[in-house]
Amino acid sequence: MNDLLGSIVRPTMLLDAQRVRSNIQQMAAKAQRNGVRFRPHFKTHQSAEIGAWFREAGVTAITASSLDMATYFADHGWYDITVAFPVNVREIDKINVLAQRVRLHLLVENLATVHFLATHLVAPVAAWIEVDAGYGRSGVPWHDQAAVKDLAKAIVECDRLSLQGLLTHDGTTYRAAGIREIRDAYDLTVSRLEQARGWLMELGYSDLELSIGDTPACSVLDDFSSIDEMRPGNFVFYDLMQLRIGSCTFQEVGMVVACPVVSIHPERCEIVLYGGAVHLSKDHLQREDGGPDFGAVVRLDGTGWSAPVEGAWVSSLSQEHGLVRTTREAFASLSTMVGVGDLLGIVPVHSCLTADLMKHYLTLDGQRIDMAPIPAAR
Amino acid sequence: MNDLLGSIVRPTMLLDAQRVRSNIQQMAAKAQRNGVRFRPHFKTHQSAEIGAWFREAGVTAITASSLDMATYFADHGWYDITVAFPVNVREIDKINVLAQRVRLHLLVENLATVHFLATHLVAPVAAWIEVDAGYGRSGVPWHDQAAVKDLAKAIVECDRLSLQGLLTHDGTTYRAAGIREIRDAYDLTVSRLEQARGWLMELGYSDLELSIGDTPACSVLDDFSSIDEMRPGNFVFYDLMQLRIGSCTFQEVGMVVACPVVSIHPERCEIVLYGGAVHLSKDHLQREDGGPDFGAVVRLDGTGWSAPVEGAWVSSLSQEHGLVRTTREAFASLSTMVGVGDLLGIVPVHSCLTADLMKHYLTLDGQRIDMAPIPAAR
Repeated sequence: MNDLLGSIVRPTMLLDAQRVRSNIQQMAAKAQRNGVRFRPHFKTHQSAEIGAWFREAGVTAITASSLDMATYFADHGWYDITVAFPVNVREIDKINVLAQRVRLHLLVENLATVHFLATHLVAPVAAWIEVDAGYGRSGVPWHDQAAVKDLAKAIVECDRLSLQGLLTHDGTTYRAAGIREIRDAYDLTVSRLEQARGWLMELGYSDLELSIGDTPACSVLDDFSSIDEMRPGNFVFYDLMQLRIGSCTFQEVGMVVACPVVSIHPERCEIVLYGGAVHLSKDHLQREDGGPDFGAVVRLDGTGWSAPVEGAWVSSLSQEHGLVRTTREAFASLSTMVGVGDLLGIVPVHSCLTADLMKHYLTLDGQRIDMAPIPAAR
Repeated sequence: MNDLLGSIVRPTMLLDAQRVRSNIQQMAAKAQRNGVRFRPHFKTHQSAEIGAWFREAGVTAITASSLDMATYFADHGWYDITVAFPVNVREIDKINVLAQRVRLHLLVENLATVHFLATHLVAPVAAWIEVDAGYGRSGVPWHDQAAVKDLAKAIVECDRLSLQGLLTHDGTTYRAAGIREIRDAYDLTVSRLEQARGWLMELGYSDLELSIGDTPACSVLDDFSSIDEMRPGNFVFYDLMQLRIGSCTFQEVGMVVACPVVSIHPERCEIVLYGGAVHLSKDHLQREDGGPDFGAVVRLDGTGWSAPVEGAWVSSLSQEHGLVRTTREAFASLSTMVGVGDLLGIVPVHSCLTADLMKHYLTLDGQRIDMAPIPAAR
């Protein structure tokens, strides 16, 4: 790996392929134990090559966050794809092309969209009612019986749509801290989906599935007997946010960004990195002192990376600069090991956004892994 | 433009080329009136085609934020380029290639880097001492006379480096509100640079230039007689942050992101857009109520875009979703004009980061403008 580190000249995503494969296998095994369909979200890695590691773990169904991403994975041999985003009717041409190539699943959450699809679809599509189970983003509100029923009826009336079930992204687990809060959030979400499914059973719609996708619940809970499908994405790499939530251990974090050190300021115990907002993203956590935390600092060595250096964190990001602030103790320790021209690793706050910015991975054995290309302008 | 709006299917950067050209011409004229070199920062637009608009305004010298970006602009005919980032010694090969092609200016702020350059440069380079004039990012501290002098001496001793002057990015003006605070910040910065230059004159180094680059000061102040070079970048488009600071009027904002409406929730006065963190970036401002503001909302019509809709703002972003929150009044007004499948425009908080994510522009007359390609993996 020292040759590898020597070859790095600019901010570079380092991938521990062994950890990533292990994360994939463990989640696949958990889904299998529970008898639920594992439909991992590929928006985190956005890579056909990493996708192939899922295929080796027996995965055949996937989730994407856009039609462009779904098309990319269709191009790489995936045939059963959910676009986990409310249908954007402006992309009907992409939808129709894709629906003729693969088993396409779409999310609907309002009547206007269902009516549009009813008159514009040219091929069959599996429809999921997106339910807002309390997170407050997209989805029909979990408590709105009339809206849930009207939507289901409209879907069933549309020849080309087959009603598959109810789906939610449970963003509330990202606000949780620890397993108990995650379990409470998950149980509440499932109970709300079950209630909505109950209303649809009153209409005579049976065999409706429940689909949930969030890394915290899928990572820490063991019993998924109430649902039919899980769609976690972030677990493939994890990140600082998931560490804080308690979704993973540090030994499961599969990606860090190697950043060249360009300046060291002992007078303020700070280190300036080549690695900024265009590499890591401006997503951040809040420190106990109220300040922002844009990433944890790790040392890079011949085998991978160290545990996070205590007392060191990325305190600010501008376009290309990352500023590492440290305690006096951490600075004393770090500055004996790292000088201008060396590398430090940063555990990103939110690996999905970092990967989306970086566009290439470098494995610890020096293999370059590409991601989906930038979507066309229109 | 209605055909233009009709052609948009996904989040798209709309450019008002007339406003952008006017912003460029006004800044170029201001520099000329002051007799200072205008070296605009091209990190905001990252586009050879927009770069050509600067050339039409008489610009011959530019600033880039990375060697990859500098190389891209060298490929497009620019010959006088400052990389306004502390030298990353790991990129010495790129530096040497570029230094043989163009008049390359580099920033140095520590002795280790100067010593490295002294033994590794193969072609002449103009060196600027980067001074930290109080912002606290990179640069030799403005008050450290010994460090400033030692750095200058080391530069002068290096055959391939020619000491050009002192340069700073005055990030403190981004924390200002209104013209008086901007002027105070600018005056303080200039006085600190002048003091440091005075120390170097004691060593016999004359004709040293002062270079400053920040959009707030360059936008609102008129007298730049104390400096030799200005390097603003963001002014080409401006954005919501600059509006808040007072650097521009709304009529000068040259770019918004057109986002498809995918869901409308009257029960909570919210509109869900296709347009998320991977399009707008997670940079945000703080609202008076303490909550985050990820962008202002504008209506799009046949001529461009409206003023920001009062009482509507982007309250949260996930990977692909943008959530617009509104007051009851704003919702009542917006929802009569916009339905699922229509477009809303978002004025981004920080146009540099949004452009970096979006990678293509669409002008109001339907012309597509490309940006620099993604840098190679290593």
